[in-house]
Parts: sequence; C-alpha cells; structure tokens
Amino acid sequence: MPYLDRIDSPADLQGLTRPQLDELAEEIREFLVTNVSRTGGHLGPNLGVVELTLALHRVFESPRDPIVFDTGHQSYVHKLLTGRRAGFDRLRQSGGMSGYPSRAESEHDWVENSHASTALSWADGLAKAKVLRGEDGTVVAVVGDGSLTGGMAWEALNNIAFQPDLPVVVVVNDNGRSYTPTVGGIANQLAALRTDRRYEQVLDLVRRSVSGTPLVGGPAYELLHGIKIGLKDVLAPQGMFSDLGLKYVGPIDGHDVEAVERALRQAKRFGGPVLVHCLTVKGKGFLAAERHEEDRFHAVGQIDAHTGEPLSSIVPHIWTNVFAEAMVELGGQRDDLVAITAAMLHPTGLNQFAVSYPARTFDVGIAEQHAFTAAAGLASAGLHPVVAVYSTFLNRAFDQLLMDVALHRLGVTVVLDRAGVTGTDGASHNGMWDLSICGVVPGLQLAAPRDGRRLREALAHAVTVDDAPTVIRFSKEKVPDDIEAVSHRDGLDLLHVDREPRVLVVGHGQMAGLALDVAARLGQQGIGATVADPLWALPVKQSLLALAAEHELVISIEDSGVVGGLGSRLLLEMSAAGVTTPVQVCGIPQEFLPHASRAELLEQIGLTAPAVARRAVEAVARLDEAATEAATQPR
Amino acid sequence: MPYLDRIDSPADLQGLTRPQLDELAEEIREFLVTNVSRTGGHLGPNLGVVELTLALHRVFESPRDPIVFDTGHQSYVHKLLTGRRAGFDRLRQSGGMSGYPSRAESEHDWVENSHASTALSWADGLAKAKVLRGEDGTVVAVVGDGSLTGGMAWEALNNIAFQPDLPVVVVVNDNGRSYTPTVGGIANQLAALRTDRRYEQVLDLVRRSVSGTPLVGGPAYELLHGIKIGLKDVLAPQGMFSDLGLKYVGPIDGHDVEAVERALRQAKRFGGPVLVHCLTVKGKGFLAAERHEEDRFHAVGQIDAHTGEPLSSIVPHIWTNVFAEAMVELGGQRDDLVAITAAMLHPTGLNQFAVSYPARTFDVGIAEQHAFTAAAGLASAGLHPVVAVYSTFLNRAFDQLLMDVALHRLGVTVVLDRAGVTGTDGASHNGMWDLSICGVVPGLQLAAPRDGRRLREALAHAVTVDDAPTVIRFSKEKVPDDIEAVSHRDGLDLLHVDREPRVLVVGHGQMAGLALDVAARLGQQGIGATVADPLWALPVKQSLLALAAEHELVISIEDSGVVGGLGSRLLLEMSAAGVTTPVQVCGIPQEFLPHASRAELLEQIGLTAPAVARRAVEAVARLDEAATEAATQPR
Repeated sequence: MPYLDRIDSPADLQGLTRPQLDELAEEIREFLVTNVSRTGGHLGPNLGVVELTLALHRVFESPRDPIVFDTGHQSYVHKLLTGRRAGFDRLRQSGGMSGYPSRAESEHDWVENSHASTALSWADGLAKAKVLRGEDGTVVAVVGDGSLTGGMAWEALNNIAFQPDLPVVVVVNDNGRSYTPTVGGIANQLAALRTDRRYEQVLDLVRRSVSGTPLVGGPAYELLHGIKIGLKDVLAPQGMFSDLGLKYVGPIDGHDVEAVERALRQAKRFGGPVLVHCLTVKGKGFLAAERHEEDRFHAVGQIDAHTGEPLSSIVPHIWTNVFAEAMVELGGQRDDLVAITAAMLHPTGLNQFAVSYPARTFDVGIAEQHAFTAAAGLASAGLHPVVAVYSTFLNRAFDQLLMDVALHRLGVTVVLDRAGVTGTDGASHNGMWDLSICGVVPGLQLAAPRDGRRLREALAHAVTVDDAPTVIRFSKEKVPDDIEAVSHRDGLDLLHVDREPRVLVVGHGQMAGLALDVAARLGQQGIGATVADPLWALPVKQSLLALAAEHELVISIEDSGVVGGLGSRLLLEMSAAGVTTPVQVCGIPQEFLPHASRAELLEQIGLTAPAVARRAVEAVARLDEAATEAATQPR
Repeated sequence: MPYLDRIDSPADLQGLTRPQLDELAEEIREFLVTNVSRTGGHLGPNLGVVELTLALHRVFESPRDPIVFDTGHQSYVHKLLTGRRAGFDRLRQSGGMSGYPSRAESEHDWVENSHASTALSWADGLAKAKVLRGEDGTVVAVVGDGSLTGGMAWEALNNIAFQPDLPVVVVVNDNGRSYTPTVGGIANQLAALRTDRRYEQVLDLVRRSVSGTPLVGGPAYELLHGIKIGLKDVLAPQGMFSDLGLKYVGPIDGHDVEAVERALRQAKRFGGPVLVHCLTVKGKGFLAAERHEEDRFHAVGQIDAHTGEPLSSIVPHIWTNVFAEAMVELGGQRDDLVAITAAMLHPTGLNQFAVSYPARTFDVGIAEQHAFTAAAGLASAGLHPVVAVYSTFLNRAFDQLLMDVALHRLGVTVVLDRAGVTGTDGASHNGMWDLSICGVVPGLQLAAPRDGRRLREALAHAVTVDDAPTVIRFSKEKVPDDIEAVSHRDGLDLLHVDREPRVLVVGHGQMAGLALDVAARLGQQGIGATVADPLWALPVKQSLLALAAEHELVISIEDSGVVGGLGSRLLLEMSAAGVTTPVQVCGIPQEFLPHASRAELLEQIGLTAPAVARRAVEAVARLDEAATEAATQPR
C-alpha cells in the first residue's frame, strides 16, 4: 500500500494532493476490510469515517488539538494515521491493540470510555482548561447522530453553546443510524438539515466564480468569511443548534475529503463553538456492509473479506435468543406487556417482539434514563414494561431505577444482556456493576438464571410482579444445556447434594456450571459439598442463610464485581442473622479489566473451576487446622 | 377565606368568574404565606404557580388527565385545590402532609420523585399507555425552565416530539431560575422566545375584534384555530422546540389565569404533543420573596409572614460553611483548582468560591452527568476540579464517575453535601446511597470527616490526589465541635481507648460523636471499648482490619444505607483477610424513609446512642453466653 505504508503520524498527511488523498482513502478501506474481517471488530462505523478522519488529522494538530471520539469504536482510521498500523494484527486480543482509544497506546488518544454521548462533555472540560491555562488549540469532539439522542450530549451542548469563546468543534458524523436508524425529534431535525444543501451550493458557486484554491486562506475562503451578513442564514441555517446558540456549518458530504477539510478549517478559524454536520454512509465502500439493512456491519466477527459472510456457519444459541423467543410468547399471552430498549432493538433480541407487536415496542434512542422513567410511567398506567439493555448501560439509569421505578413500587422488568465478563470490548463493556447497584435498590428482585429453562421461568414470573422492579441478568455467552435440580428447598434449587457436606457452593447464572465443577473437584478431594442456585438472588432468601448455617464453609461464585455482589450481600445478611459460617467470595475483582477474551480474563481473575476449588480446599484445610489447634489447646 | 374555603376538589373551580378567580388567587397567596411561614417549606416556587395551577385544574380533569409536577416542590397549590387544605398545619412533619406529591395522600398525585427533569419521561410513559389502552385524556407535565437543562428532559422531548398523536401537554413554568438563574443555551433560547410577544398580540387583536368569550369553543378560538396557515408562524414561532417537531404555544403571562387557560385549552384540543411556555415570577405577590436575589425564597424555614425575615436569628454553623471557606482558601493557594456545580452554587457554598474566582467556577445547570464528565476533561488537561452536589444527586452521575473519572484515573474531587438522613424533604432527598455506589468504583477514595478540622484536612488532601476520584461526604446538620483523637494508629484516629477493650466502635462523619456516646454507655455497663475513625473510609485500611481482629466485636456506625456501606465493606474485607470478629452493622435500613425530622427518623431506625449501645450490649451478652456454653460442653 504505497501511501498508507508511509503514514506514521498525522504530519505525514500534510503534503498529499487531493488525488493522493483519494488513493490513501482507498487503501485504508482495503486495509480495514482485510484486517478486521480476520480479527473481527467495528467494521461498518470505521468504513464510514475514512475521509472524515483524514480531514481531521490534516486540519487539526493532534494531540495539541485533542480529538475525542464518542464511544470510540470509530477510531480505527485514527489509529492507522497515528502510527498503529501494525497493531491491527492483534486487534482486541489480549495484550494486543484495543478496539477503542487507549491512552496507553498513544498520546493521540484521550477518552477510553465507550459509553455513548460523553464526548461533548469531555470537550467542554478540555477546552475550558485550555482557556484557563492560556493554551492554544481547539478541542474536537466527533459524535454520531445517535449519540445526540443521549441526554448527556444535550447537557453538554447547553453548556458549550453559551460560551462564545470556547474553542470546541463538534463534528456530527451523521449516518442516520445508532446501531440501527436513529429515532426521535433530533433525527428528524438532522434529516431536515440534511436536505438543506444551500451551503454546499453557495460554495460551489464561489468555487466556480473565483480562481485559486478554495481552501483556507484562499480568496474563496476570504470571500465567504467576509460577507458574513449576507451568508449568515446560509452558513447558519435556522435550526435547533443555531437556536441554542451554536454556530452550524453543513451539511457536508463526509466522503468528500476536500469539503470536510474546508468546513473544519472554517470551524477552527471561528474560535468559538461550532457544529460541523457531516453526512456519511456507514459501511461505505464495502458493498456487503452498505447493503446490510440491520446494522451495516456495526460490529462483525470473522467474515469473508469479499462477500461479508461469516466464516463460521455455526450460529451459537445465546441467551439473547431465549429471551427474544420468550418475550414473543409472553407478548401473545398478555397484551399489557410492552418492550422498551435504548437503541438496541437487535442486540437485545427485542426486534422479534417488535415484529409481532410493533405498537408495544419502544426504542427510545441512546437514552437509558428516559427508558427507565418512561417505563415507570407505563407501569403506573397499568402496563408491564420490560426494559432490555446491556448490563453496563444500566449504570446510566441507576437514579431512575431507584427513584422512579422502585420508590413508586412499580412493576417494571429490567433485562440485562451482556452481564458479567464480556471481554474483547474492554473495561467499559464488562457487565460487572449491575448486581452491586441493584442490591442498593429497596424491594428490587434479581435473578441470574442458570439456563434457558430458568430464564423463561424467571421472565414469566417477573412480568407478574406488579409492585417492585424485577431484574434478570444473563451473559453474552452460549446458553448452556438445562441443568436440572436434584432437589429443592424453600425456593432454592439444589444442583448437587453430597452426604455430610461441609461446603456450600452457591452458584447462579453463567456460574452454576462452574459451581458443579467445583463440587466435583471437592468430591475428588474427599470434601462433601452442596451446590445451591438461589434462582432469585435478591432479596436473599432465609433458606439460603439456613443452608449456609448447616455448612462449615460457603463458596459464593458470581460473574459480577465482588463489592456489593451476592457474596458480599450474603455476608451482610448472615451477619445480621448471626450465621457465622465463613464465606469465600469468588467474583470479579473490583477493578477495570483489560481487553482480552472472556476465557483469558476468567483465567486471570481466578474464576475457573480449578482456581475456585483450590481456594475452597485451602479454606477447608485452614478450618481443619483451626479445629485441631482448638482441640489441643488447654481449656 | 370565602373562596378558598369552598374548594374541596378541582370541580369546585368550574363555576368561578374571572374576578372570582383573581380573588381566589389572592386568598391562596395569603394562605401560603401565612402557613408556610409557620412550618417552613418551598414558598417561592409555589407563589409563582398560583394562576397556572388554577388554570390547569380548570382545563384538565385530574386524575383522568394526570398532572405531573417536575421535582414536585411546586405542588402546594395543587394540594390546596385537591382537598388538602387542612394538611398545611403539619406540612413536612412526621405523619403530616408531604412537601411533595404523595400517592398515599391523593389520587391526583402521580410522581413522588423530587429529582429534577423526570416529568417529561413520566408523561411520555403515561400517555403511551393511554394510547395503547384506548383511554381518553391528556397527560400534563409541568416543568421549570431549570429542569430543561437536565439531559433526561432532552431524551424525553426527543421521544415525545416524534409521536404526533401522543396526548401530552408540556407546560414550561419559566421563571428564569433553577435555584438561581438558569444557565446555558436553553436559557438563552427561552429568553429569545420570551421576547416574542406576537402570539399574545394576535390574541389581543382577535379579542378586540370579536364578541363573546374568547375561551375555547368561542369564536375567537375558532378563528385562531381556523386560520392555521396564516398564523402558523405566530403560533409556532421558529425555535428549537418547533425544530425538534414539537408544537409551541407562547409565551403566555403565567399570572393571567385567562391567558393560561386559553393556551392550555388550545393545547389540549390539539391532541398531540404541545409545549406551552408560561412566564412566571418566583415568589410572586410576596415582596420579600420577589426582592430576594439569591433564590426568591426557594425554600424557607420559619419566617415572619410580613417581612420574610427568619424567626430565629441564630444562623447555625453548618458543614457547608466550613467547605465554602476551605475552598476559597485552597483556591488562593492553587490556581489549578476549579469548582463545578449543577445548579447549586449557593446551596453547596460554592458561591463564595465563585465570588473570588469567577473564571474558575462552572455552574452547568441541572446536569450532573455533564458536571462529572466535564470535570474529567478538566482534570485530564491538568486542572483539579471539585464537583459539589447534594449526595442524592450523585446517583445521576454514577456512570460518569465510574467510566469517565475513575477508569481514566483522574484527580477529581467530589464533595457531597446533605449526606445521610436529611428528613423533611422525604425519601428522594435522603443522602443514603452515595457510600454504596462509591464503594463499587475502583480506586475511589472516600472520607466522611467527623468535624470541621477533619473536613478541611480531607479537602486539602483530596485536591492533591491526581490519579483517582476522591469523595468527601458530610451532613446537612450543624458541624460539631472538633473531636480530637486520643491517639493514632496507622492512619486511624482513635477517639476513645479503654484498657482491655472488647468492642471496637467504628464511627465517622456525623456518627463519630454517636460512637463516643455508645462507648461511654458501654463503659457504664463495664464493657471496654475502642472508638476508631478511619478518616478515609474507602479504601478500607489494613490497620482497621488489624484493629478489628484484636476485639471481640465490631460495631460499625454510619449515616448511610447498610447495603454497601462501610460496615458491609468491612465484612467483605475482613472475610477476605480471614478476620472472624463478628460485626454489627448499624446504618440506615435499605428502604425508602418517610418524611420526618432527622431526629425522629434516627429514633425510628435505631441510629441513636441508646439503641446502638443496647445492640452492642446484647451482642456482647451473646458472645459471653456462647463462650460459657463452649466451656461447659464436653470436648
């Protein structure tokens, strides 16, 4: 790749001519398709920002001018242009290059959080600091149109807009889609702006009527810049961004690198907050992606670099499938069941419910706060909402779950997909916080089903609870075969019962199988065990406390952060009940995990059967030691 | 009060003439000033919505047409008109009437959550349910202009605007203030709309030119309604709400009951989402309030009903004062210190910092999410931000604290005022969640200083931590006299040390004094105790675990929810360290507390010295019993 091979830093972009840039863009697309089809990753979004990223790095001086990518999954081109070509061999792999910006990788990266709608707030802070410290430079926030549906983006716009000297350029990468097409008033407003081609028409006119380069500093620019008053309405058409006080430039063809550059230079010169509206096509240049109606190859696994077909023909049966089917079935039984999601209709499987019951399905955009409070409203008028989001995004709606749903004792069911360690997407995608924050919510009931049958049962029960929030969490993994109980006890499923058991292993959700494996290993060491699945982990059942009291040791295993997880809660409830059995809490350590495969991470944090069994055996040995010591002490 | 005395339900408003309504409004203001000056409460906001609420209840049929008040502190007039006149005798008192809507009080009340910006989402849900269930009626959301600065409001508007048949009327009660004047682009946009009087002018014209009543159904209405095209731009002026797709009516003089009624009837008839923009004056009709620049008597204690002067001349020295002064001092020492708040400049005491360092103070509006992520941006550019909010509002920014501040290992200091039981404002104002959610955040350091000196020291330390979030929480109560340590041990302050102590009492923050009192009571029973203040409660210090191991019993006292509080965390860390000393966790039970004074609530939940001492004595007795039993058992 003659051009790409010579780009080791943004400075290398400066000398290129327009045809050379077009050539480079072509090479970048080829590089992305070839490499990402092999490793998997966010292909569609990155194909859409090739020219935009080239223009950004030609106009702005990163890192002096920080470029903040919202969600960050569209930073592959940025990585390519900032010396990380070689990293694509091991994209998203343990020890390899992150699929998101990473400060450890490059001084050109600023924000690693891959939750949406944050970039404008980061930019506001970074730019305020520049002003206060008297530093030069402009802060650029690159946000998708979908991210503008999130409330944070609004809070930031509201602040940025009224600081006339804040050096912030907001680039809206408008591909009309979140994962799927963006919804709501803002989407309509963007669409209205999209059809307003006056700006580009005027530029064309100017370009034709003056000689010389139309880029910054040239006569065309000066002309445009000079006749402010006449062009004011054209350069800043009526629209909500202008109403808010934000200068607006656009719409720009985001695949015309020259047009984008021109707009960005104008925005940079302005010196205050400007919004540059670029129209792009997600998946651009890869026909299979452009034609993919569902999500334009938002994120892919390994695919054929020509056809875009998945390399593996085995489609795993995942938890999402079970939930999707169960929802459709319940929807047929109850017409008061409604479904809500936050721009994740397909990823959560609610698209199936939407096909059958479109009037009862609400995609609210990237707006978890609204999703939960609107659900409270629906419930308070007699319907039963099921809100389905990824576990990690529940963090955005904690206050609404607490104050709108729980305080009002409303029957809202929350379904959390991607709970536990998810792996390759890195720290901000792991679903390791939900159990802890749910535990704080009064009255909340939480289940982590261990298999498909239990998921269906939990959901069927949850939608009958009409006076409290119910939460069901499950993993992104394959759903295991059903694990039947060997016996039951006051609401607990006992999955394994040895005679004279010494150790109680509590396992639920994706960890039930692991718990059984641990019990088997204990058995091999001659240590009897009971394995219990509480089915509903919150509130903690009295029967679980009673069972704990009958054993010498409790091993609590969970695919969740240890602080505030079920093990921690067991300790608290046992303490209150005067049950003194020691507890080994096995879960995700309370830290930000690096990106790696789930299996690698579980190995690293000791959430494997051998590791947990070893902890249990050691704990039993310590108990035996203490007992021996006590017996030999003089009384 | 001849008119007010006859209003027992909204139906009683129907027959009144305009002069009678004016008379009634007069009586309501008198009633509010007389009563609220005696009990304390949200006087200013309610004086501003007298005519607005009268119009709402004349135009809409509550509860068939639900009226949702955002934050709810402006629902006093609504309470008066829905049969709760007598309740004002015991406003905000234990067992008396709530200062917020309460479903237990009336079928006219829907939403009890007093966190801002939720009403539009509630309305969206309630209205969607109406449509799905085929029910008649309109849902009315009454929101302040300040609430529109919150991201949730935007998320909701974005959804409401694109559902053309959703029966939602959004009434913006625009008094130009949150607590203090509203900031940001939205405030400017409202101001621009405010000056656009065309709508009222046209109405005046129509009123003069036609005979008969100008109210709904009359010829004026029909005329206005009929000539849609010509008046389109007048009735829906260019502005961001219209751009978003929302019909806009206004601005209306919110103190002209007839004008408000007319606008509301028009909005109701429209059948789809409409925003009605009403201009009101906070504190209207009470000169002392109207003239009060700081917050127009947003919330008052007992005051003189004529002068508005506080009845008690003693201004208590509260934690906020200590923080305010310490910030000013630190600001003088370090010019990289910046302060951020979310529409709470005065309540958090940051107004003093703002006076000294205006360029370094940022009030972002009711926008906690943005506050925290902007702080991350400021920190990442080398400044040290201090974000000051009420404890309960941290819930809104959990994800940002976790993913933007902590994941990026940034030095942001969070100062939480009103931590612990606050009391009279009811369930959603108690600061009982922060310690639990902070405990989940990797690397976070948290202190609950026990006195003014410790607060100053904690803050001075916090602003030097540049690689992790630091959190300082304190109560709304008077700051106690300094409590000096009798000795120190590896970072712990020991406040009381008996010889041969059996019980370790851990107390911090507002509970340190209580811990000392408990120790004194234990001493009276012949039980030796140690009282330790960990100073920084998170992360848990090894020295605290070691100290726990040296005692027979730990009593952990905290002004925080027991689930995920310090006691719970101690249990977890002790379990991991193999320390088996039993722990009595004394804190706020994990439930929504009713409104009452702090003292009453502490009594109810057993967070008093006698109650905690009793628990401790009983626990010691159980330990003695168990020891005796063990000693008499055959070996």
